[in-house]
Amino acid sequence: MLAAGIMSGTSLDGIDVAICEIEGLDQKTQVKLLAFDTIAFEPQTLANLSQALNRDQVSLADISRLNVELGQVFGQAVLRVCQQNDLDSKNLAFIASHGQTLYHDTSNQNNIRHTLQLGEASEIAALCQCPVISDFRPMDVALGGAGAPLVPYAEWVLYQDPSRTQALQNIGGIGNVTILPKSGRLSDLVAFDTGPGNMVINEAMQILFNQTYDKDGNRASQGQVQEKLAQHLMAHPYLQAPLPKSTGRELFGRAFTQELIDAFPQISPLDFIATVTWYSAACIAFHLDGHIPAVPQVDRLIVSGGGAYNPQLIRYLKELMPKVEVIRQEDLGYSSEAKEAIAFVILGNQTFHGRPSNVPSVTGASQPAILGKITPWLDLSKTKKFS
Amino acid sequence: MLAAGIMSGTSLDGIDVAICEIEGLDQKTQVKLLAFDTIAFEPQTLANLSQALNRDQVSLADISRLNVELGQVFGQAVLRVCQQNDLDSKNLAFIASHGQTLYHDTSNQNNIRHTLQLGEASEIAALCQCPVISDFRPMDVALGGAGAPLVPYAEWVLYQDPSRTQALQNIGGIGNVTILPKSGRLSDLVAFDTGPGNMVINEAMQILFNQTYDKDGNRASQGQVQEKLAQHLMAHPYLQAPLPKSTGRELFGRAFTQELIDAFPQISPLDFIATVTWYSAACIAFHLDGHIPAVPQVDRLIVSGGGAYNPQLIRYLKELMPKVEVIRQEDLGYSSEAKEAIAFVILGNQTFHGRPSNVPSVTGASQPAILGKITPWLDLSKTKKFS
Repeated sequence: MLAAGIMSGTSLDGIDVAICEIEGLDQKTQVKLLAFDTIAFEPQTLANLSQALNRDQVSLADISRLNVELGQVFGQAVLRVCQQNDLDSKNLAFIASHGQTLYHDTSNQNNIRHTLQLGEASEIAALCQCPVISDFRPMDVALGGAGAPLVPYAEWVLYQDPSRTQALQNIGGIGNVTILPKSGRLSDLVAFDTGPGNMVINEAMQILFNQTYDKDGNRASQGQVQEKLAQHLMAHPYLQAPLPKSTGRELFGRAFTQELIDAFPQISPLDFIATVTWYSAACIAFHLDGHIPAVPQVDRLIVSGGGAYNPQLIRYLKELMPKVEVIRQEDLGYSSEAKEAIAFVILGNQTFHGRPSNVPSVTGASQPAILGKITPWLDLSKTKKFS
Repeated sequence: MLAAGIMSGTSLDGIDVAICEIEGLDQKTQVKLLAFDTIAFEPQTLANLSQALNRDQVSLADISRLNVELGQVFGQAVLRVCQQNDLDSKNLAFIASHGQTLYHDTSNQNNIRHTLQLGEASEIAALCQCPVISDFRPMDVALGGAGAPLVPYAEWVLYQDPSRTQALQNIGGIGNVTILPKSGRLSDLVAFDTGPGNMVINEAMQILFNQTYDKDGNRASQGQVQEKLAQHLMAHPYLQAPLPKSTGRELFGRAFTQELIDAFPQISPLDFIATVTWYSAACIAFHLDGHIPAVPQVDRLIVSGGGAYNPQLIRYLKELMPKVEVIRQEDLGYSSEAKEAIAFVILGNQTFHGRPSNVPSVTGASQPAILGKITPWLDLSKTKKFS
């Protein structure tokens, strides 16, 4: 059947819409991407959204209005992608909408763990005239889980392979990995942040070369890895921290990078870039190389995200893990940019059929759960007359 | 099947929980109330809720946290009523939760009509281990309706009678009526606010007698209706205003009452109370007596709300409408206080079975709609093992 997925991330760089043909359930799900596009926010919506996210305080009226406005914008994005591809949204069995995360705190402060996504599903349904599935995170949170990450379930469906244990390594600002053991058991899945991905490289490029990133790993390839800096970096406590774990800009951002440059003034800029690029690879290799008891031996590493386009980083990964097959997600024929929107089509398909799709071993939830809320749509053409 | 309804109104006086046996659909719905209670909010929850409602500005964290906290409080209220009645919440086919309205504005300011109810359904489902249906208003709003009132559908199910046209008159601060024509067609339903119910009486009792209300219509029964004041009141523009219409404290509150007392200084306090009590009855009679083209001739008037306990008000109603049978809701054996929670069981039952339950002739929505969002619950005892 036909279904759409909508994803809008915290970076606010647009609304990803994937339209898929999807059949089957659980491990036997078959999904084919028919259309994908990223629709930019209108300036006014972006302004309203940024204001809500960046101000300390908002009015209830603003929140209530923004919920409806985002729902309308998400629905219009689906309509646009349908029109571009000669599809009729009425033929969608469902639209799975992640929503815009306004707040997420599962740290259990005040004994309340909570997450809030906006984008009124009724507005999407009324515009597109089909059912909508939304709010995928709250049920996992209600069951004691972190409500994230949710994509591992879809990765298991798309990539699981009984002949080998695979690591799906995304290299964005932070690196995160999902490990799909060849056992095929969902309960054996492991997912966590591996440490800095491009973050330290990009910060150093800004400070040392006044550039936003190391295009094609060009600078890194001209430098040499410096042993002392490398040893210092490998001693970072994040590497030894037990699972589950996640990290971010507060640990590996601008301040961390500047302190590092200040502490090693004798290292040349090119060598510095080479060493922090090696470090991103070494963090991944460290976690996949038997140092973490919960992580099985990996046969194949599938790299996605911006880091997949840094050949020097890929080279380091291959050097550090000579027994592991290192490939890029693109080499498998899957679109990297559409991945999250497709993931929500897969999660929506589970919910639509009353099947679970959280991964308790990854989120920490107490049990498997059907994720999300279903907003039904009354198709008048198929309905017994309503007196 | 067994189902529960949760209603928590804007007065914050507690959480109404009704547990019902419900069978059938549409006009053929059969519902029986098994248990009802109103659970007071814990002081801390009430403080958090009042703060959010009364402050101009709130933080996103507060809203996100309050949504989960309310969900937990609603779920606990259902568990409490189940325990009191030796019922297991796991046996509920669904819980229908209205949620706490934080904002409702369908006036189309900025071209955005919106409504926001909080009380995370996933938290209710996880606590009670059954599916939850929530968020009944947004779909009607998305279809151009006011998202209110929603209770007329349930009134149609409970009270519709092919032998007579009935008016369900609630007399709270404001009076509101639903008219169920004997035709039985949902599209013939009319509902609107009739004008002041107890509001002017209570304000005058406060000003003239320093009491909160006229117990048993005692003062009114000792006074005489004063013609000049009565004529002045009947000239109020609200009466002639066309349907749909609604009113509130801003039209008939303290200021209105004080001005009235000041304008008629020669009228005694007892006569004043008698005349405004007569006015409440006269507003109802005016609307049901052929002055409004859209309103059919009524055969029976069923009175509920606080005004039903004012015998003098009932007496005036009977005098003003001699051809109409005037009875109280209690006389029909229905619980007045449980009415709204039962109404949401009926609306939830429609949604659970993919059937509509808004009344477009009342809300102004462009079409019939299935109201609400369904949060499924995975019953592990009935589920194929999830690998």
